Amino acid sequence: MAEITQVSPLAPKSFPDLPEIGGAEFSAVEAGVKYQGRKDVMLARLAPGSTIAGVFTRSATRSAPVLDCQDKILTDSDAGAAIIVNAGNSNAFTGRNGVKATKAVTHAVADCLSLPETRVFSSSTGVIGEPLPYDRITSKINELRSKLSAGSLVDAAEAIRTTDTFAKAAATEVLIDGTPVKIAGIAKGSGMIAPDMATMLVYVFTDAKVERDLLQSMLSELTDVTFNNITVDSDTSTSDTLLLAATGASGAVIHSGQGPFRDALHKVMLDLAHQVVRDGEGATKFVEICVTGAMNDADAKTHALSIANSPLVKTAVAGEDPNWGRVVMAIGKSGAKADRDLLSIRFGDVLVAENGWVSPNYREEDGAAHMKNQDLTINVDLGLRTGKATVWTCDLTHGYITINADYRS
Amino acid sequence: MAEITQVSPLAPKSFPDLPEIGGAEFSAVEAGVKYQGRKDVMLARLAPGSTIAGVFTRSATRSAPVLDCQDKILTDSDAGAAIIVNAGNSNAFTGRNGVKATKAVTHAVADCLSLPETRVFSSSTGVIGEPLPYDRITSKINELRSKLSAGSLVDAAEAIRTTDTFAKAAATEVLIDGTPVKIAGIAKGSGMIAPDMATMLVYVFTDAKVERDLLQSMLSELTDVTFNNITVDSDTSTSDTLLLAATGASGAVIHSGQGPFRDALHKVMLDLAHQVVRDGEGATKFVEICVTGAMNDADAKTHALSIANSPLVKTAVAGEDPNWGRVVMAIGKSGAKADRDLLSIRFGDVLVAENGWVSPNYREEDGAAHMKNQDLTINVDLGLRTGKATVWTCDLTHGYITINADYRS
Repeated sequence: MAEITQVSPLAPKSFPDLPEIGGAEFSAVEAGVKYQGRKDVMLARLAPGSTIAGVFTRSATRSAPVLDCQDKILTDSDAGAAIIVNAGNSNAFTGRNGVKATKAVTHAVADCLSLPETRVFSSSTGVIGEPLPYDRITSKINELRSKLSAGSLVDAAEAIRTTDTFAKAAATEVLIDGTPVKIAGIAKGSGMIAPDMATMLVYVFTDAKVERDLLQSMLSELTDVTFNNITVDSDTSTSDTLLLAATGASGAVIHSGQGPFRDALHKVMLDLAHQVVRDGEGATKFVEICVTGAMNDADAKTHALSIANSPLVKTAVAGEDPNWGRVVMAIGKSGAKADRDLLSIRFGDVLVAENGWVSPNYREEDGAAHMKNQDLTINVDLGLRTGKATVWTCDLTHGYITINADYRS
Repeated sequence: MAEITQVSPLAPKSFPDLPEIGGAEFSAVEAGVKYQGRKDVMLARLAPGSTIAGVFTRSATRSAPVLDCQDKILTDSDAGAAIIVNAGNSNAFTGRNGVKATKAVTHAVADCLSLPETRVFSSSTGVIGEPLPYDRITSKINELRSKLSAGSLVDAAEAIRTTDTFAKAAATEVLIDGTPVKIAGIAKGSGMIAPDMATMLVYVFTDAKVERDLLQSMLSELTDVTFNNITVDSDTSTSDTLLLAATGASGAVIHSGQGPFRDALHKVMLDLAHQVVRDGEGATKFVEICVTGAMNDADAKTHALSIANSPLVKTAVAGEDPNWGRVVMAIGKSGAKADRDLLSIRFGDVLVAENGWVSPNYREEDGAAHMKNQDLTINVDLGLRTGKATVWTCDLTHGYITINADYRS
């Protein structure tokens, strides 16, 4: 296994201050599931009355914990809830033993915290196809409970890392009818990132009071413009899980899927999604791809993801080459509607191509200058209708090859 | 631009003996379109009575020569025909000037060879978005004509190379009603290879007599099991063109889309398709992916291409890592039907996974031994119905990054 010691050059300058979320407590311990000498299991306890929404991978080979969460996520309950997550082993493609392991872990948590088992959600991330040594986790539940505290979300963010080079968290606060409401979330993920429905492991917590159906619809809609619009390598995990818990402890009640709470939640989710891209395996560039003028939003997203997933575009970005011909190629192959002679391409603000050819005023050095940025933008207008989409990706470098030709994931 | 000097380790041991095809003559010259000191333009002249079939990229941003070929391919004519191809500039995304350049070249050939312009097919391959200096080509047409000979197909194979590390050709002979029929073809391509409908540049010639509709239907069907089932990097070219010309010079008439002629044509096309993969940019491994037991053949192909295009599978192959978890992941994300608990995976003959988990008798060293081969096979049985597909790909290595982070294509 390749040693990954260097923090991504795209990592945020500092870890954010995380607020305490009333009704939510966290802890993390060293269980030695696979990694040694670091915390690798986290527990979250949510107060009675919390609502929980989730979105999950649509992979046909999804893991036992994902299937278990999907079974439970539509249940209503006034009991509290818990989320337990381990890193180092994904418990995916582990047959009946995988189901048994998931049940053993969730049962132990339910027992220890006096919760119904239907209110204990679990995730596992790491190597696929190896039996989960679940006794290493169940033997630590008492310790996890004893360490629960409102201030330990940072420990949870650390514990869920696998090939991540930095822990990922984001938070914000918003006033709802004069009451301050907090939102804080954590994420892990840096490879096998091309979310379909949800992505990676992400946990977001708020002290707002939000009825479950509303919480779920907001989460699903916002996932479509955040986590579902990022890609590192076009590969989709078997374990993608995103859970959103609302404890209601602030007393503020959310009645609408629009407005400041949704905006605040969007901000936290987008921040976490961008951090996942910024920790893309081997990444040296963060790329925003904006497509406008498509026949509809779905077509715009198809084009944007085709550009974002193209190995030839991603290697051109790595080489700081303003290779707009490869962008044209990626649009052409996407399957969505495009007219070669109507589309225009900009690198940042630099107009590169229009009317089916290179722009008459384009100078190669202007495009090259934009490509030297660490954060850069590729703007494509298709000139058809009003469909638009924005996706985020990173470049494809020797680092990605080095990590993945050796690391057993 | 990265210097590509080393021949792919997967190249065939030797260049094949190419038979002369009655009714077909070839030549190649140095025109300096982009490359210096090498032949970069080829001409083929086909005798009166030849039929021609073609398949082309479905890219929405396809090049001017592709659009021109598509306009002409359905025309019937007893006149002869010609194919002219340049390397170094793809004349793609070059606006109205691209159309003008294509017309200038095909007009000059028609004029020089006394052919109707509708019988002159052209292709261009190389950098996208730069004006084609077509006068460098038109000024060489007389020289190309004077050099035409039945034995010069090898020169044509050399002339159409861009990032190819070796010239690609294949040939066979088959008896039709006691008459020997010859088939010979050439191809170029090593990156931007994920054909959709057709692929790269490929030209196949036979001296059989085949009516145009039959020739076209055989070509389309065989493309679907040869060139449309290979992928190097999931990126689809704007210039993919495959032309098949039947001169009839042998006197043998083909009446059926089945039988020995089709089989012989299949063999030549598959050989060329494999050679394109074997020259995949940076490739060190040739991988055959066989999927059986799918709901239908289309589902099988979706799964097989999902595995073949997965960066995580391809880097695992590069690292000689029998990482079957990534194969499970690629099946899961493909969108085609799969049941996690019914599928089985073999590396070569080694049964790795079955019944939703690692096979009880699987030993890691057996899988690892198969991965050390230069040519290797990943077999997946989905356990559902009888759908099957085979695709071919190569690994993803540092060589691919090196070539594409620098080369302006």
